[in-house]
Amino acid sequence: MGKKENNLYWHKHSVSAEDRWESNGYKSCVLWMTGLSASGKSTLANAVNKRLHVMGINSYVLDGDNIRHGLNKDLGFNPESRRENIRRIGEVSKLFIDAGLIVLTAFISPYREDREQVRNLINSGHFIEVYTKCPVSECEKRDPKGIYKRVRSGEIKEFTGISAPYEEPENPEIILETDKMNVDECIEKILDYLIDNKFIHFIKRPRGVFVK
Amino acid sequence: MGKKENNLYWHKHSVSAEDRWESNGYKSCVLWMTGLSASGKSTLANAVNKRLHVMGINSYVLDGDNIRHGLNKDLGFNPESRRENIRRIGEVSKLFIDAGLIVLTAFISPYREDREQVRNLINSGHFIEVYTKCPVSECEKRDPKGIYKRVRSGEIKEFTGISAPYEEPENPEIILETDKMNVDECIEKILDYLIDNKFIHFIKRPRGVFVK
Repeated sequence: MGKKENNLYWHKHSVSAEDRWESNGYKSCVLWMTGLSASGKSTLANAVNKRLHVMGINSYVLDGDNIRHGLNKDLGFNPESRRENIRRIGEVSKLFIDAGLIVLTAFISPYREDREQVRNLINSGHFIEVYTKCPVSECEKRDPKGIYKRVRSGEIKEFTGISAPYEEPENPEIILETDKMNVDECIEKILDYLIDNKFIHFIKRPRGVFVK
Repeated sequence: MGKKENNLYWHKHSVSAEDRWESNGYKSCVLWMTGLSASGKSTLANAVNKRLHVMGINSYVLDGDNIRHGLNKDLGFNPESRRENIRRIGEVSKLFIDAGLIVLTAFISPYREDREQVRNLINSGHFIEVYTKCPVSECEKRDPKGIYKRVRSGEIKEFTGISAPYEEPENPEIILETDKMNVDECIEKILDYLIDNKFIHFIKRPRGVFVK
């Protein structure tokens, strides 16, 4: 990653993603959370981020807060802008992966094609699609930001899951049924995936006497 | 940085830049290299990056290789695109700083106004302007990529320092006269700045008996 083939001098001084994995003791990747509004993407991304931080792992959350108000503040919400929004988030994720971090993204990203483009951009195996699966009725019940209410009142016209499509992932690496699992169970499932696939090598402490 | 004021749940799980500084043992910042083509920006950015890596510090280089072919591949070279190019690099640097890394950027960035906009975007004191000062005659003599030759032959019309302006920094934090200093001296000057300004706290090993 990030290598420049024709410049020996540059080569001499470069630090590759592999160099970073070796010195960090873990491999970088993107945990790409996708799902309806209020399905738990942001909550879980931040919870996992916090847990990884405590474990001494450098990780970072990309979400609406730091992307839509910064890098992508020039973009609107028409189809072309939405696609460009996801493209740039994919490119930034790739830079973070190259820099050795575990990135968590929290965007609805409703279109399969857009998510596949990001998957193709990232080196094989380092794109981990995490589907926060939750019935729209449950998301609407939660409605922490009152968005569904504004959709129902007609204030917001086009909204994923109500009046615009959400294309479910076909083969996501991880499915979190957030109406059936609590936050801790979701975190554990993500950490299990990272450990089983050798991104991180920590031995988890047992959570109870008879629990692994 | 990156805090969301109205959402208690999010707050509970967030990891701030300050949290990362404390656990990492160093503070993040951007070393914004600016200067003519072939003045040494990329060589020095990569050399410092390598040195920081060896010191156990997470750092990353943003340069034409990983930005122009990725995030900014949709941008051309007209004035508006050049400004947007720098804006996005500034926003990505801000994300990396928030994530706790020391970022090094290697772009000519010839306009004072563009650089000032990035400075204003980054939290006070964490934007470090590094001017790789070198006479254009010396840069042209080096010409590692043969670009100056293509400018002189008329193949490239508009080029910074020859047929387009380079606006020198007025008060850069660091000036590296790359026609007078060698690579090691430049690296030391940058590390001295980071130590003196408490970004990093390492005690450098003496390079000779009587050297500090």
